[in-house]
Amino acid sequence: MKSVYLSKIREQNPLIHNITNIVAANFSANGLLALGASPLMSANIEEMVELPKISQALVINIGTVIGQERDAMLLAGKTANSIGTPVVLDPVGVGATRYRQETVRQLLAEVKFALIRGNAGELAAIAGEDWQAKGVDAGQGETNLQEVAQRVAQRYDCTVLISGEVDIISDGQQTATVHNGTPLFPKVTASGCLLSAVCAAFLAVDEGKHFSATIEACAAYTVAGEIAAKNLTIQVGQFQIRLLDELATLTPDLIEQNAEVKYV
Amino acid sequence: MKSVYLSKIREQNPLIHNITNIVAANFSANGLLALGASPLMSANIEEMVELPKISQALVINIGTVIGQERDAMLLAGKTANSIGTPVVLDPVGVGATRYRQETVRQLLAEVKFALIRGNAGELAAIAGEDWQAKGVDAGQGETNLQEVAQRVAQRYDCTVLISGEVDIISDGQQTATVHNGTPLFPKVTASGCLLSAVCAAFLAVDEGKHFSATIEACAAYTVAGEIAAKNLTIQVGQFQIRLLDELATLTPDLIEQNAEVKYV
Amino acid sequence: MKSVYLSKIREQNPLIHNITNIVAANFSANGLLALGASPLMSANIEEMVELPKISQALVINIGTVIGQERDAMLLAGKTANSIGTPVVLDPVGVGATRYRQETVRQLLAEVKFALIRGNAGELAAIAGEDWQAKGVDAGQGETNLQEVAQRVAQRYDCTVLISGEVDIISDGQQTATVHNGTPLFPKVTASGCLLSAVCAAFLAVDEGKHFSATIEACAAYTVAGEIAAKNLTIQVGQFQIRLLDELATLTPDLIEQNAEVKYV
Repeated sequence: MKSVYLSKIREQNPLIHNITNIVAANFSANGLLALGASPLMSANIEEMVELPKISQALVINIGTVIGQERDAMLLAGKTANSIGTPVVLDPVGVGATRYRQETVRQLLAEVKFALIRGNAGELAAIAGEDWQAKGVDAGQGETNLQEVAQRVAQRYDCTVLISGEVDIISDGQQTATVHNGTPLFPKVTASGCLLSAVCAAFLAVDEGKHFSATIEACAAYTVAGEIAAKNLTIQVGQFQIRLLDELATLTPDLIEQNAEVKYV
Repeated sequence: MKSVYLSKIREQNPLIHNITNIVAANFSANGLLALGASPLMSANIEEMVELPKISQALVINIGTVIGQERDAMLLAGKTANSIGTPVVLDPVGVGATRYRQETVRQLLAEVKFALIRGNAGELAAIAGEDWQAKGVDAGQGETNLQEVAQRVAQRYDCTVLISGEVDIISDGQQTATVHNGTPLFPKVTASGCLLSAVCAAFLAVDEGKHFSATIEACAAYTVAGEIAAKNLTIQVGQFQIRLLDELATLTPDLIEQNAEVKYV
Repeated sequence: MKSVYLSKIREQNPLIHNITNIVAANFSANGLLALGASPLMSANIEEMVELPKISQALVINIGTVIGQERDAMLLAGKTANSIGTPVVLDPVGVGATRYRQETVRQLLAEVKFALIRGNAGELAAIAGEDWQAKGVDAGQGETNLQEVAQRVAQRYDCTVLISGEVDIISDGQQTATVHNGTPLFPKVTASGCLLSAVCAAFLAVDEGKHFSATIEACAAYTVAGEIAAKNLTIQVGQFQIRLLDELATLTPDLIEQNAEVKYV
């Protein structure tokens, strides 16, 4: 694949507004900075009309949604929609509780997302598939995940990224898979949340080409992870630190040489 | 000692529901993942009836308790009690403010805990002993800590772990001490919080044997810390990363070869 | 320069009460512990009369201020003022939203600060200067920053630290610059927040000499950063870990040998 967007992120240094959880806040901010974007974290409803307007993308992550944050997410999402700022949804653990289901249902009803990024369990829950998710982890099931991605993309007129051992990207018409990565990713908390934030940085500079930008985002992140995991077996502490290092040192060449993307 | 529970955690991958503070959230989640458990963080009162029911243990940590979180803790604790899910209390800095004292008093009155894990200052405060705690740090005093552990364990019919240079575990009848560890532990924030979460993972698989599971949890954690601290003097940054690595690479053999446990 | 205060921090181990954001909470606590201080994080309004009274300094950081936290900041600040505990303001992203502007305006009106620490964009916003800040990042402008520092210091009768490539410290009468540091600092999230916390630790032991204590704090932090950045190009993950290591191993000698301080 050709890397188009990484260098644009480095040039434009887009501001990414994150409404995110207390587990991911630091890691996502450091990952965005490493990549070349500018993170801003706020879930304060008093700021949800202004922040989306100065940002180039918005991430709505429901990982530890609490109190007025649901209302803040809705307001920020609508504001972003009104001015064309792309919005990414990370429906963390959506199948785990009714509150999360209801939050995601309402977000999907009232906000137009450019991208939904989740693991298999989360996307299966959104699609109404039978799946045994485990808290905020992917869990297991026998669903055809490519079909799930296509169906959800069509229903919500957006791009969908199901991340896992193989990542699946679909905009409802086209579908691609990315075959990079490392088994260390699911051993680091918030590595999915950071991927959503990374996608937002790519969408911030893609001029509407969300499908190809999401593929590159996914390739960039998993290639960085692959390099970070070299010579590591299960040292999860070192891996998370090196992942930040590799996001900072990543180049378009490294993506192009290592990315394994297939179009279905 | 014989390691019984670590391999069960790795096999069963128990889901641990953490109501925890903004300082520890990421570190505790990463530590639990490294160990082989599945973390889920939520303090949202709307989820406190459902989450304890899908979890194998619950941690209630009052480190940055705020707003409705106290009510959420009470509801989650009672829900867990109603279905027999073990609950761990981490009474962070309980002596520091009346609000924390009142929160812990109410939790102890309304929730049955399987384990209370704190430092000397926190357990002395719960026992009503004279002790000079320092914010959320242990502080100093002359109390007989083994007696404190026994007394609190008897009063609340639970296991107590007082962590420090020597760790003391008591269920009111039996008392043991663990002599592993490193002076680097108190130099890493939330290392006590992570120990509480690690204990919860052990309790999640112990079939009610909380005293021996807590001893193994404590030995596992402090042995991992000892190995992580090798060749380090005061490099606290490297230590926290290596601690995660060592929790991931820890084996029953390493625990059995290194643990120094004494029964009082 | 002569290092006066670092050894006092190590001896006195001051308790630093932080009302801070969800991104910085862990990193600031670890940085303070590494330096030799004792961190306590709480934004709970129920604790804002007691905590400042047991602390030797208070940090008010508005990075992710939400809900009742603004009121908590005001109450904690006034309590600290009433008993002479020094208060540090970190006006994170103050120019980004009306809510932040209003929060800082109110804090500056009702609380007497010992130190305001921010980047160029934040201090320009407080001074009412024309400046293009970017979210919570410094941004750019042509303002004379030394004049800004002096003016804000005079208006609020406090010390001001504008951190950046060159750090500027002024108490309105005297002004100094610190020329240490590394381009990796702005690539690590919350590195400014941690500097504010570090300054608070120095102010906690300075017996009222805030100008010289802030200069030493700034020199200590940037010298530690310089050493941490050795042999690194852009490895931001390793840098943040090594920064904690170097804060722990820092000595008065290292500060004295490496600090480049100029008095204007």
